[in-house]
This record gives sequence, structure tokens and C-alpha cells, in this order.
Amino acid sequence: MKLLEEKIKNEGTAIGTDILKVDMFLNHQIDPILVEEMGKEFYRLFKDCGATKVVTIESSGISIAVAAARCFGIPALFAKKAAHKNVGNEVYSAKCYSFTHGNEYTMNVSKKYLSSEDKVLIIDDFMAGGNACNALIDIIGQAGAQVVGIGIAIEKGFQPGGKALREKGYKVRSLAIVESMNDGEITFTPEIDS
Amino acid sequence: MKLLEEKIKNEGTAIGTDILKVDMFLNHQIDPILVEEMGKEFYRLFKDCGATKVVTIESSGISIAVAAARCFGIPALFAKKAAHKNVGNEVYSAKCYSFTHGNEYTMNVSKKYLSSEDKVLIIDDFMAGGNACNALIDIIGQAGAQVVGIGIAIEKGFQPGGKALREKGYKVRSLAIVESMNDGEITFTPEIDS
Repeated sequence: MKLLEEKIKNEGTAIGTDILKVDMFLNHQIDPILVEEMGKEFYRLFKDCGATKVVTIESSGISIAVAAARCFGIPALFAKKAAHKNVGNEVYSAKCYSFTHGNEYTMNVSKKYLSSEDKVLIIDDFMAGGNACNALIDIIGQAGAQVVGIGIAIEKGFQPGGKALREKGYKVRSLAIVESMNDGEITFTPEIDS
Repeated sequence: MKLLEEKIKNEGTAIGTDILKVDMFLNHQIDPILVEEMGKEFYRLFKDCGATKVVTIESSGISIAVAAARCFGIPALFAKKAAHKNVGNEVYSAKCYSFTHGNEYTMNVSKKYLSSEDKVLIIDDFMAGGNACNALIDIIGQAGAQVVGIGIAIEKGFQPGGKALREKGYKVRSLAIVESMNDGEITFTPEIDS
């Protein structure tokens, strides 16, 4: 998605070869027009997947997930992060290690909002190692629901998360795939356009 | 806002006289069409305030804040919650006690995204005692920015937060003001329509 790639180049900050900060427009301050366009683009890419629900993880995925869900006319649902596991039968939960924060957390989804009849489109802001996405897939599996697509705003193509999920057969589409970062120079992989 | 009041009556759950759960459509699962309409309504109520930025608190305020910000054509910004204070001069921060979670947390906003030239419209999903909103007002004050309006989705009118802020002179508008809850029966206060 050219609009997002341009935004990353113009306003993002690449630190070293691995850290990409986009808190100017995506995960602290949010550009609502960009988010709207991202939602439309996810709809274009996944409109034939039969999704009944968009699922994301708090907090940075929420705005994009809601924009996409509006295009589909289906609900959005966000997994809640908890420092320690909520006990009880009322939630599906999975543990996830965050490299960004250097800690393990538990994400929770109420059993009321995912069922075996759901076809889930996962949306998130970033994909690197794929830990968060895999935890979400675990939760969706616990509900007996089906993952019909994975839409990522920014994928770090030089990390293994996206590749591993594609090899497992998931339809993964990323609006911008960063191929490499070097001295602040960001190179993108051409997008998969369908 | 009739649409929101109806949604609360039909899908919300009142527990006792104080707890109102709206995780079916607002703060866990999200109805994107409702959120869009709420954004438009906040725009209608605050369009003359000269806002340059919409500021909210993660996570449940984000979708509404972004919907409103899109109507205004200005950025949204969300304060990040941290279990302990981020040290350093790079963030404005304020402590807040959460009655929902029974703990104190610190909310942080990067100094990069709030300045003395900003006119801030605060948007949040709930107002009860007003703790979170007051912490956000503290942060906005640290930046030398001005609060030009406070838009709340659901205000608990029987708790003191909204009244205290109105008495201080803030323009507070809530899309639904719950007057009382009793045995699952929810009564609303007529809205202020401008």
C-alpha cells in the first residue's frame, strides 16, 4: 500500500537494523485518515473470506481493526492484555512473550464473543516474530473458530513470523513489508496485491 | 444519543446499582457502525471548539477517539498505561487510580505529540469518578495545551466526575448519562443537545 509505505518513509524512524518507530501516525498518535484507508485496503484484500468477526490485540491494533470491521459490516473484538492470567472458565487465554516490552503477558478473550461458528479475520499493526499473532490463533482455536485471514499493517519481512504463517497455509497480507532497514534507509518488499 | 441509549438498554448489563457492562459493543467487542455514529455526534457537539487533537486513554477510548478525529480531520492520540512510571523527560505522565481494576497506574504521553499550541478534545468511553479524565487533564496541562472539550460516551450521572468537571467550567458532553440503575432497569438523564 503506497500510502502507508510513503508514510513510513516520511514520518517513521528506523533505529539500527531492527527497530521501526511509527508512533507519529499508528501506535501512539493515530492518523485517522490513513487508518480509514487501511481498513478499506484490508476489505479489498479479504472481502471474499467470509469473515464474521475481526479480531485484534489491544491497543495499537484497535483503530485499524475497527476501520476494517466497518467496511465488512461485522464486529471487531480485541484481546485484552493482562499481567497475570484471569482465572476461570469465562475467557480463552494464551501467553505471549513481547520483545518490545521484554515481558510475558496473557491475552484474554471472553468466551461470549468467539464461537465455533466464527470465521475470523485477524488484524494487527505489526508482525515480526509472530508471537502475538500465534497466541491469537491459539485463542481462536480454543473457541473452535476458524482463521480465514491475517491482515498486518507493517510486517518486518526480515523476521520469521509472516513467512512461517504463510507456510502453514494462512492467507497473510501485509500493507507494507519492510525488507531491510539500514542507517535509516528503509526498503520495502513489493506487496502481494490480491 | 438515542442510538447509544437503546444499545445500552438492549445489550448492556446492569449489575446492582453501580456496574454497567457494555463489553458486547464498546469495550471488548466493538460495534464499528455505532462507533462511527458516536464520532459524528461528538463532531456535531464540539465542531466549533477549534480542536487540533483528540486525546484519549488506551484501550477502550481509542476507537471512539479515532472516529471523532476523522470527522474533525485532526490526529488522535492515546495515553499509554504503564504499570510503573517511565523514567525520563520524554513523556508527560500522571498517576490514576482505577476503581475497575483496583490499582493505580501511570498514564504517559510522549512530549513529541502535545505542545502548548494544542487545543485538545478529550474523548473517553466512560466517566464515573473522573479520575482518568483528571489525570489526562493534568498531562495536557503539563504540555501547556488547552482542553477545549470533554466528550464521554457513557457517563454515570450518579457519580461525581462529570458534575465536578462542569463546575470547573469544562464543556462536558456525554452521549448517554445513566441516572440510575436498579434491578437491571437503567434510567437516562435527558442529554444536553449542543
